[in-house]
Amino acid sequence: MTATEDEQQGPTPAAVNAMLEREFPGTGNVCAALGATHALARSDIQAGALRPGGFISGPTQFGLADAALWYLVFGAIGRIEPMALTSELSIRFLRPAQGSVLWARATLESAGRRNVVGSVRVWCDDREHKPSATAQGTYVLPT
Amino acid sequence: MTATEDEQQGPTPAAVNAMLEREFPGTGNVCAALGATHALARSDIQAGALRPGGFISGPTQFGLADAALWYLVFGAIGRIEPMALTSELSIRFLRPAQGSVLWARATLESAGRRNVVGSVRVWCDDREHKPSATAQGTYVLPT
Amino acid sequence: MTATEDEQQGPTPAAVNAMLEREFPGTGNVCAALGATHALARSDIQAGALRPGGFISGPTQFGLADAALWYLVFGAIGRIEPMALTSELSIRFLRPAQGSVLWARATLESAGRRNVVGSVRVWCDDREHKPSATAQGTYVLPT
Amino acid sequence: MTATEDEQQGPTPAAVNAMLEREFPGTGNVCAALGATHALARSDIQAGALRPGGFISGPTQFGLADAALWYLVFGAIGRIEPMALTSELSIRFLRPAQGSVLWARATLESAGRRNVVGSVRVWCDDREHKPSATAQGTYVLPT
Repeated sequence: MTATEDEQQGPTPAAVNAMLEREFPGTGNVCAALGATHALARSDIQAGALRPGGFISGPTQFGLADAALWYLVFGAIGRIEPMALTSELSIRFLRPAQGSVLWARATLESAGRRNVVGSVRVWCDDREHKPSATAQGTYVLPT
Repeated sequence: MTATEDEQQGPTPAAVNAMLEREFPGTGNVCAALGATHALARSDIQAGALRPGGFISGPTQFGLADAALWYLVFGAIGRIEPMALTSELSIRFLRPAQGSVLWARATLESAGRRNVVGSVRVWCDDREHKPSATAQGTYVLPT
Repeated sequence: MTATEDEQQGPTPAAVNAMLEREFPGTGNVCAALGATHALARSDIQAGALRPGGFISGPTQFGLADAALWYLVFGAIGRIEPMALTSELSIRFLRPAQGSVLWARATLESAGRRNVVGSVRVWCDDREHKPSATAQGTYVLPT
Repeated sequence: MTATEDEQQGPTPAAVNAMLEREFPGTGNVCAALGATHALARSDIQAGALRPGGFISGPTQFGLADAALWYLVFGAIGRIEPMALTSELSIRFLRPAQGSVLWARATLESAGRRNVVGSVRVWCDDREHKPSATAQGTYVLPT
């Protein structure tokens, strides 16, 4: 399957963002790309949200990693399911996060009937090769 | 060592909160108790911060668990060290978090020269026996 | 509820060990205590199993932590359920593990219809106050 | 850099396996491929090591994931450093593991002066696309 076909078969980023604006206004997280096995989330960092030294906080990075995994669930199961919930997530902080845009890319590890497991890389601006954090986690689907 | 002695030998919650207000204004997280082997963090939840259904978000819970571990580092090493950084943290969400005050209690597992490891329980209002999340993580000390 | 009542209402360590010998011979892990909210596992370390320097390996410690969580599931749900499976487990190694007996104590964080979450402390001989590892994890129950 | 150059610049699998046989005989884990950003570990599963139903146990999978990360450290830092130690590792079990050969592939997330962080996929036989487990963890280097 090509990336283009992959994108076409499930929810689009625009559909996810419309749901986010309707149901979860104010998070600042945006779905930038979505497929059956990957999702890309972005957040424009407000100057007021930075820690001393200009660093993006750990919880902000956690929040975007968690959002990317959530979008990945939508792509993996082929529908927008807002009631999918984080079951567990482990995150490792690798280097200071400084920049104006924070990115998180989630990659599918496994999708089952009840759970979706994925890995997430978090970075700033165009430095995907120098991630600020890496995470892995599980979403549980409503039954 | 009694709890009272434990509190007396290290930084007080008031000293931690003074640092927070000076260096990290606006997080809304407060140190409510602190000793060499435990720390208690609280956050008064603003109605506007709630998710649909009145739920406290996962990243908010992660943020308070992370804050409690950070305060625990201060108690464990006996000084306020703002440059202690989260190395890794894993969190499990156990049940929906609903309430007006969120609490997180961190308990020391190990304190070394370079790392402090602790466990954290997160809950709402007076329901410590019904935690909304549980976490474990590592802080690294500056060298 | 007293510890004694707690022990009386669920499976006994002897019943767990009989199942282990019948179904999983040769692991060397033993259930030493069991209640609705805690379980204690032990393993007599064979000299041949030690790493250079006399250290107990990380996977051996992981295995006993995992076993303690499994026994805890039996206590928490009130029956021996061999088909309960580890969903995820995170472990932190705190100091070298040296000794002739390895212990792991699991404490219940949450028991639901589908999942049991617990924390585990691992140590050698009588040094429970100097743990070699600490872990947290989730078991999933068969449906 | 091509994969071949990548392999040439650091320790070879043969050098790692010679160290393993000399220092850690009997684990049954083998280094099958090694580069600066990846490592592949394999273990031939003995029939006697299987759980009822023919399943490879969780601790066995944890052990091979941990070994793959250890080999990755050697590739990432460019030398065989047996005293690199697991700091923390989180593992998620995705489906039953059945087969005669267990594989674990570790991929580098970050290599610093003190820590190496990587992700690991575990699978049986030729089913890399159907992993039995996925993990992420940190090794700490001796100072």
